[in-house]
Amino acid sequence: MSGYKTARAVKVRGLCMGGGFPVTVQTMWKDRLDSASPEVVSRIEGLKSLGCDILRFAVPDEAAAETLGALAGMTDMPLVADIHFDHRLAMRCMDFPIAKIRINPGNIGARWKVEEVVSKARDKGIPLRIGVNAGSLPAGLRDDADLARALLQAASDEIGILEDLGFSDILVSMKASDPAVTVRANRAFAERFDYPLHLGVTEAGPLIAGVARSAIAMADLIRDGIGATIRVSLSDTMENEVIAAREILGAIGQRREGITLVSCPRCGRHSFDTHAFTARWQSRLYSMGKTATIAVMGCAVNGPGEASHADLGITGAGDWVVLFRHGEIIRKVKPEDADTVFEEELAKL
Amino acid sequence: MSGYKTARAVKVRGLCMGGGFPVTVQTMWKDRLDSASPEVVSRIEGLKSLGCDILRFAVPDEAAAETLGALAGMTDMPLVADIHFDHRLAMRCMDFPIAKIRINPGNIGARWKVEEVVSKARDKGIPLRIGVNAGSLPAGLRDDADLARALLQAASDEIGILEDLGFSDILVSMKASDPAVTVRANRAFAERFDYPLHLGVTEAGPLIAGVARSAIAMADLIRDGIGATIRVSLSDTMENEVIAAREILGAIGQRREGITLVSCPRCGRHSFDTHAFTARWQSRLYSMGKTATIAVMGCAVNGPGEASHADLGITGAGDWVVLFRHGEIIRKVKPEDADTVFEEELAKL
Repeated sequence: MSGYKTARAVKVRGLCMGGGFPVTVQTMWKDRLDSASPEVVSRIEGLKSLGCDILRFAVPDEAAAETLGALAGMTDMPLVADIHFDHRLAMRCMDFPIAKIRINPGNIGARWKVEEVVSKARDKGIPLRIGVNAGSLPAGLRDDADLARALLQAASDEIGILEDLGFSDILVSMKASDPAVTVRANRAFAERFDYPLHLGVTEAGPLIAGVARSAIAMADLIRDGIGATIRVSLSDTMENEVIAAREILGAIGQRREGITLVSCPRCGRHSFDTHAFTARWQSRLYSMGKTATIAVMGCAVNGPGEASHADLGITGAGDWVVLFRHGEIIRKVKPEDADTVFEEELAKL
Repeated sequence: MSGYKTARAVKVRGLCMGGGFPVTVQTMWKDRLDSASPEVVSRIEGLKSLGCDILRFAVPDEAAAETLGALAGMTDMPLVADIHFDHRLAMRCMDFPIAKIRINPGNIGARWKVEEVVSKARDKGIPLRIGVNAGSLPAGLRDDADLARALLQAASDEIGILEDLGFSDILVSMKASDPAVTVRANRAFAERFDYPLHLGVTEAGPLIAGVARSAIAMADLIRDGIGATIRVSLSDTMENEVIAAREILGAIGQRREGITLVSCPRCGRHSFDTHAFTARWQSRLYSMGKTATIAVMGCAVNGPGEASHADLGITGAGDWVVLFRHGEIIRKVKPEDADTVFEEELAKL
């Protein structure tokens, strides 16, 4: 841990990033935002209940800026505008209660444009996130044989532009699709800068690949004290990105709240389909706002014993389904009543 | 890495585990094996094409032993019999070309039973895997406040029983559902013993939780040189367990063969549904036996540039779909032709 700076705190609407505050979780809206509808607000509420702290939207044009602005007034979820090239979109977004702008000053052209953005961000108290990606490095850095060094240099150049204007309300990300490169770049950054880091592995792939690559890189960094906020990029739903982020934080002991779900993989001994049960209950368990360990086990031989640490467990026992609490069997029911009884016991937790 | 012993090599049918050989991947059959049918053989072939090196089956009774024995003669996949308590099942399995028996000598009762099993295993050249799980520790160890120490002690006691009989063709696993406990137990083991380790986080949960917990624990251990074979336990399919294992190995640079799939998470700028495309192609890409990087990107602005390292890439470009190779656009087609053209280009790799 030695050698890494502690990140300064940067305020992102009501949230503190860095400064020793808990690592926050974010995801990014996956489709064009056509309207700030009640359906959008309701999906955002769902993301929040799963553990999403902050939500980013691509703003490719003026219409998207208007819609995002309207949406920002309809939810208390901190919303981030992701902008490439066109500084007018950033200017427009800052007319609304936007929590953060992701923009690379090196990409928006003439110095006066950067000055305009920085000046408005300062007035409004809106932080800027510099986002450097391995695949879109500036021309001069693209051929560096050391990709981690190039990412750090690109971030450092972008930071320099903002610091020259006296602006330091900055967050930074450096993402590569190779977890090892991502880790090296972020470690090198934390040796030199104290801006809070947004961690992510870029183009991490579909669900399994993306979770594996992100978990390994983020665990390495967060356990070193590096990283203020994380986004697990998946070619999958936002909800799964949030679940993945919380599971990664949980696996390294950084998240104490919420449901810890343990469940057995099923084998030839099973009399209870743990796959179907976890699939059916996962979202609801993760959204229920309780802190407990829930076990879903395949057979009575192993179930209550192997999961005796669980606050509530369910398993098969021949033709019956058994519920247990801290290893003690509390109810024995017919399979068709399992979900109802499980729900009752869940409510008692 | 200092302080950890290099594992001795143990032969498991045609495979070498430990001894500096590559880390192998395994999974476990999830249902009762009712017959050694061509469908079972065909599913095993599918698992093999995804990267599964070894496959375990629960053997809860005599009928299961007979079926597994028959199956072992129908495939060259090394098959492992998982046995609890009843030493006669182990004896029967060893009449067939079984690759390994997972059995805890401390669980099978009288010493003569252990002697019979050990004697037959020695005659047949079949290694035994001791599998210690946090949830099923012997009574005397269950209340140890240090779970990792208890796991190590349980493994050490089981090893002692086999070593007393002069048997050393041993593999060992120590699994907890907490990744940190799993890591601590296995590191402590590798400081003391040189038996190859089978790594796994037990009851790791459904897909996302299980991949996150397993990836973090396995990455920590394998990068320390610990672990000869891995099994990612998921409340999900065997195929996904194998894909998860290869992705974990790939993410830490331990797997050089096969397809590396990078794909973007999609955002409001996308004009190509990377989710649907990766879902449609993932299994086939992972099974095709080629080594290449394939990129599935959401938009033409970022696509070919961000994935310029890809041997083949596909992305949207307005109403068109574009294929690229090492950043150069090679074909531009209508969306309805995307899969056909992608397949053609894939064949050329």
